[in-house]
Amino acid sequence: MTGSNRPSEDDLIARWFRPLATHPAALGLADDCAALTPPPGHDLVLKTDSVAVGVHFFADDPWDLVARKALRVNLSDLAAKGARPIGHLLSLALPADWREEDLAGFAGGLGEDQRRFGISLLGGDTIRSPDGLVVTITAIGAVASGRMVRRAALRPGDRLYVSGSLGDAALGLALRLDPTLAATWRLDPAGRDHLARRYLLPEPRVALAPALAAHAGAAMDLSDGLGIDLGRMCRASGCDAVIEAARLPLSPAAAAVLAVDPARFAAIVGGGDDYEILAAVAPAEAERFEAAAAAAGVAVTAIGNAEAGEGVARLVDADGAAMRMADGFSHF
Amino acid sequence: MTGSNRPSEDDLIARWFRPLATHPAALGLADDCAALTPPPGHDLVLKTDSVAVGVHFFADDPWDLVARKALRVNLSDLAAKGARPIGHLLSLALPADWREEDLAGFAGGLGEDQRRFGISLLGGDTIRSPDGLVVTITAIGAVASGRMVRRAALRPGDRLYVSGSLGDAALGLALRLDPTLAATWRLDPAGRDHLARRYLLPEPRVALAPALAAHAGAAMDLSDGLGIDLGRMCRASGCDAVIEAARLPLSPAAAAVLAVDPARFAAIVGGGDDYEILAAVAPAEAERFEAAAAAAGVAVTAIGNAEAGEGVARLVDADGAAMRMADGFSHF
Repeated sequence: MTGSNRPSEDDLIARWFRPLATHPAALGLADDCAALTPPPGHDLVLKTDSVAVGVHFFADDPWDLVARKALRVNLSDLAAKGARPIGHLLSLALPADWREEDLAGFAGGLGEDQRRFGISLLGGDTIRSPDGLVVTITAIGAVASGRMVRRAALRPGDRLYVSGSLGDAALGLALRLDPTLAATWRLDPAGRDHLARRYLLPEPRVALAPALAAHAGAAMDLSDGLGIDLGRMCRASGCDAVIEAARLPLSPAAAAVLAVDPARFAAIVGGGDDYEILAAVAPAEAERFEAAAAAAGVAVTAIGNAEAGEGVARLVDADGAAMRMADGFSHF
Repeated sequence: MTGSNRPSEDDLIARWFRPLATHPAALGLADDCAALTPPPGHDLVLKTDSVAVGVHFFADDPWDLVARKALRVNLSDLAAKGARPIGHLLSLALPADWREEDLAGFAGGLGEDQRRFGISLLGGDTIRSPDGLVVTITAIGAVASGRMVRRAALRPGDRLYVSGSLGDAALGLALRLDPTLAATWRLDPAGRDHLARRYLLPEPRVALAPALAAHAGAAMDLSDGLGIDLGRMCRASGCDAVIEAARLPLSPAAAAVLAVDPARFAAIVGGGDDYEILAAVAPAEAERFEAAAAAAGVAVTAIGNAEAGEGVARLVDADGAAMRMADGFSHF
């Protein structure tokens, strides 16, 4: 089943991927497996996530951005758990019509983000895809033993924070699907580019991990929308949450959209693809958490509080009246 | 993008996958990541491998066997490295037309093999596939610190062993593609079923791992055919190898095929999908290795020796004359 004059898998590994395998555990990709000596006194935090053409990205997205997105959605999870990323394993299912420049872009983008986040490729597998490009990454991080920040640990009285801003990626996706919205929304080029970029390339809050490990009681990253993900945290914790619509952090571009198209508020709470971090912090830790986040250069915004209850998340307006929590986005 | 009355990803996890997450590190799949406390004094051995419809299995293969094959090809790698398997992360790209009974079969097969090999699901991701079923598994095992059995450690004088028998899976694939071969080859039903089964469901030599860790100098699993894989070991080690055609272990079914169709010898050295283990053992350790393999219930056969050289694998007949090493099978 080998292609005629196409490079072999061994060629691909040697040319594109071996240079990305900088950690000693990767053994230069010259062995069948990686051999990772765990950092003493730490647990390993493990996450696997796939992105597929037509589901998580478009067929005409540049492959460097696809590679970076695939890595970043996994790093976002590690960050939310308070973990320092170490490396990742990559499984790449390539469509029959891949081109050398696609793969060069993929490896280039992956290498750029590996350097940025201080991690290494540890191992991988390349197969022919039955159809389009599918990228699966398993990310590995470390956290002090027993200190991974859990999802199911929300407690009544906790303050709820989110990093960055919400809804940008969902609005960016809407713009991608209907570019005329830029005019409808009266967006300037900077605003349009901001939203488009936030969909294409999430910003995992890796720098926030130490602040979370030190001060957060519970945390998770937001991939399916605040409504659905906060609902999961509440159910898992057996604890209610009340968040205030007016406190949800918006980028200037998202605020501009809502000013002319208020119904797009659904994208803020239910759009998905935010890859921001939802964190619960006990009141006694709140000041230290905010200071640590500021020192790490990551904006965090208090959006509400946890209350005793049966595991329900509620959204209220400035007068405390209940609002509908949007349905969220499913990647499945 | 959620389907109408199809179960959500949360439903799938709760119904089919949570029961497979038996290790405490999996946190019942209720968190975003697994938190694995590494066994003290051990390195973690990591491997990721994907199987895709039309490449590694047929569209009409039952999903329980697809799940087990996806797991087993990874466990085969860990075994070759002398590692004890702990668990795995699963990324499942489901085609749009999946049925409940498919997924029930998948989870059932996976659970059966998890119990058989004493491992747990640690985490996972389920996405819609752009086309057919793709299963990616990242397997995690443990080996005493610094003791992973390497590929690139072949030394002149080492004896070369393979486990089990070679070529069965390649002959099984040929039979699958052309069922009339059973008559051509004058196979009885037991022989035909043996070959078919060996293609559908590899037998990872997990039981051999302790013998390898204790006595082997180098090892790897055979997935692309003995010729290509031994060639890789030789190149990586800068050491030659000479193996004898007459010593390659054959099942009774494969021997029956060769008796009527000698050209099928190419499938023995180059067919791929063997998932047997190639091991190099220093002469002083050979007796202990053979005894340990026998105690583990895994047949091993000495097929040749390593020699000083530049990294070339050679196949010879009973008179020592050079034979052509077949090209091997690429899953890419």
